[in-house]
Amino acid sequence: MRLVVIGGVAAGLSAAARARRCDPCLEITVLEKGAAVAWGACGLPYYLEGRVGCLEDLVVHTPEYFRRERNIAVRTGAEVVAVEHSRRQVTLAGGERAPYDRLVVATGARPDRSIDGAGEPGVFALSGLEDARRLRSFLIEKRPRRAVVIGAGYQGLEMAEVLRTHGLAVTVFEAQRDVLGRHDAALTDFVRRHLERFRVELRLATRVESVEPESVAGVACDLVVLAAGWKPNVELAVEAGIQVGRTGAIRLSERMETNLAGVYAAGDCAETTHLVTGRPVYLPLGTTANKMGRVAGANAAGRREGFPGVAGTCIVGVCGLGVAVTGLSGAQARQEGFDPLEARVEAPGKPRYFQGQPVAVTLVADRGTRRLIGGTVIGRDGVAGRINVLATAITTQMRVEDLAQLDLAYAPPFAPVWDPILIAAQQLLKDL
Amino acid sequence: MRLVVIGGVAAGLSAAARARRCDPCLEITVLEKGAAVAWGACGLPYYLEGRVGCLEDLVVHTPEYFRRERNIAVRTGAEVVAVEHSRRQVTLAGGERAPYDRLVVATGARPDRSIDGAGEPGVFALSGLEDARRLRSFLIEKRPRRAVVIGAGYQGLEMAEVLRTHGLAVTVFEAQRDVLGRHDAALTDFVRRHLERFRVELRLATRVESVEPESVAGVACDLVVLAAGWKPNVELAVEAGIQVGRTGAIRLSERMETNLAGVYAAGDCAETTHLVTGRPVYLPLGTTANKMGRVAGANAAGRREGFPGVAGTCIVGVCGLGVAVTGLSGAQARQEGFDPLEARVEAPGKPRYFQGQPVAVTLVADRGTRRLIGGTVIGRDGVAGRINVLATAITTQMRVEDLAQLDLAYAPPFAPVWDPILIAAQQLLKDL
Repeated sequence: MRLVVIGGVAAGLSAAARARRCDPCLEITVLEKGAAVAWGACGLPYYLEGRVGCLEDLVVHTPEYFRRERNIAVRTGAEVVAVEHSRRQVTLAGGERAPYDRLVVATGARPDRSIDGAGEPGVFALSGLEDARRLRSFLIEKRPRRAVVIGAGYQGLEMAEVLRTHGLAVTVFEAQRDVLGRHDAALTDFVRRHLERFRVELRLATRVESVEPESVAGVACDLVVLAAGWKPNVELAVEAGIQVGRTGAIRLSERMETNLAGVYAAGDCAETTHLVTGRPVYLPLGTTANKMGRVAGANAAGRREGFPGVAGTCIVGVCGLGVAVTGLSGAQARQEGFDPLEARVEAPGKPRYFQGQPVAVTLVADRGTRRLIGGTVIGRDGVAGRINVLATAITTQMRVEDLAQLDLAYAPPFAPVWDPILIAAQQLLKDL
Repeated sequence: MRLVVIGGVAAGLSAAARARRCDPCLEITVLEKGAAVAWGACGLPYYLEGRVGCLEDLVVHTPEYFRRERNIAVRTGAEVVAVEHSRRQVTLAGGERAPYDRLVVATGARPDRSIDGAGEPGVFALSGLEDARRLRSFLIEKRPRRAVVIGAGYQGLEMAEVLRTHGLAVTVFEAQRDVLGRHDAALTDFVRRHLERFRVELRLATRVESVEPESVAGVACDLVVLAAGWKPNVELAVEAGIQVGRTGAIRLSERMETNLAGVYAAGDCAETTHLVTGRPVYLPLGTTANKMGRVAGANAAGRREGFPGVAGTCIVGVCGLGVAVTGLSGAQARQEGFDPLEARVEAPGKPRYFQGQPVAVTLVADRGTRRLIGGTVIGRDGVAGRINVLATAITTQMRVEDLAQLDLAYAPPFAPVWDPILIAAQQLLKDL
């Protein structure tokens, strides 16, 4: 049995490694079109910022590691240009063919560059190690002074902080009215005011039609970073007859199967299921890619495993603040047909006598079922842990009254006697 | 309607405040035998350590605050010496009587001093503000050099750190084989080795029969701290005909009712239910006391609310390390009739390129149901958040396969792509 995996980053390598654990005899080949595999894409902003010293630090494993330790053949510079499923073979650029019995498509995503002027010098999009290297060189050598970032998703917000660290004036344009693709006016307002304190200007509901290196939508700049979201790399799959969903990404069963027998997909090229709505969603994130990859790999190796989907959890560092979301915002919940009720509180994340900093917690419940269906946490400390509690509660369809009684850890160096989550849940119960 | 609350710290004041919110007309009196109310007992070690500058910082509210803001009469120095339930009245020291329609007993707990020599100078137990003041004076004026701490529960471990901060040599005696009352050899070993690095000696399975100020069980010392656990203050309740459970603390319904109609109890004088075993347990902690108090207060004011119980979550700071537990350990689970399976992992709490420190996670599942029933988390960062995820998962009876797929937040400044919790869950699944 031969397993071919197209793509050698998060999802692809998770699939290959898991397939190997499930079946020691499988012949496994990973085909990566780039020069490196197994690199942490999420670390790129921190390389640009300087906290990560060199790009090599982001590379977790080499192809040699996979060959030696896992008996997995990993080829770099190996671009698949066609999948002929009827013959169970892929064709590489150059004409070489590789046969497969099982195929995992993990072709990832690319930054949305559908804007006039995207190819000009001084305009960058961050998708690979080389993009980061070029941008860092530009920052150091050209010493730009004014940057425009297009997009206020997590990457745009991270890049705004990176560029401020380098001393640039930063303006962020966002086509939607909200940050983080969240439809959450309160969250957006919080982030906007925080960015303003760091002299990052956020211009919402402003679609940028074209960029020039010297100005964008009337804002003078000598650097433009495109961070207007991700496009799934589905062209190869579509040509092979693999179906995409309404999100434009590959449609999958819970077992990560495409519509073609024996062909799986995982990661940023594919849809996943939103656990609150039960509907397909396109939320390309590294942690989801790894989980999907594991399941695809297991099933490709003959197991029967499922990936239920995501709660929609996302955390981003914004100028010293942790901003995290999970589930749906109130507005999103209404769009999805829920009858949402929201509560917002701001309470210390530790006792006052321990100089607890404020943590802002928003909870969204569905009136009909009294279940938690969304939440945000913003603060300096303890943000990841708190959003994870909410993600767990959402995943288990916890009711707000049960959330309010949760036995959360308390000791002065770590948390207050009433955690902001519990206070927010009590607040929500008053109106529920 | 008159509500009398006996005890003016966590449970008592939570009950009074909640009762007021539920019923603006109720006549509410809180009787506190001590000189202060509403003080944070859990902050005492940090006052002794010096991070909390003065005891007054631990006092959240004054009696005047409750009178003015909540219309609650709070009397200090008001010791209740008898409850005559047939007459619906309590008697104060001095003979004064106070009638009630509803009563909340929140008499708290006291340190176990059942040891010869407990009353000698140089021997301290920490239960009130005055105890802390006396011990701090002793530390500053007498400059003791060698301390013995009796008990390796959370208070004993906190005090060991406090005394090391003051430069004392510290030996901790524990009657049981394990720390934190947990029956967890691996956890105990971890804590013992960590304490040794800070030159705190831990002597387990050593019951101390008597203390002298100069030596304890052969260890020379000029200071002894008793931290051998808590005894519920139930004498007053028992004399009034209130039943205690097998734990020795007041037995309660889910509504915090005692066996006497109209008499509720809450906090450290009472039992609660362990959510994993469904059985009564005595786990006196501030956060539980507050939750129980709220429910007791609501019901005393005519609502119908319940407190389901606790997962058994506890966190303690031990010389720079966060040590947290929830649910049952493997050994405890076996004693309780489960068929437990454990997994232990140590994995970085952030990406390696972000200098992630190791986090040790232990998960305990029940083979029969595949549910998570216990966990520990030890590390420098992110311990509270992670134990809270496990506590939430235990409370919702989550299965390990669902835990392994949780959509936990990921971004390099906050967490690794594979959180140690997910790695531990995957590890557990291999054997489950």
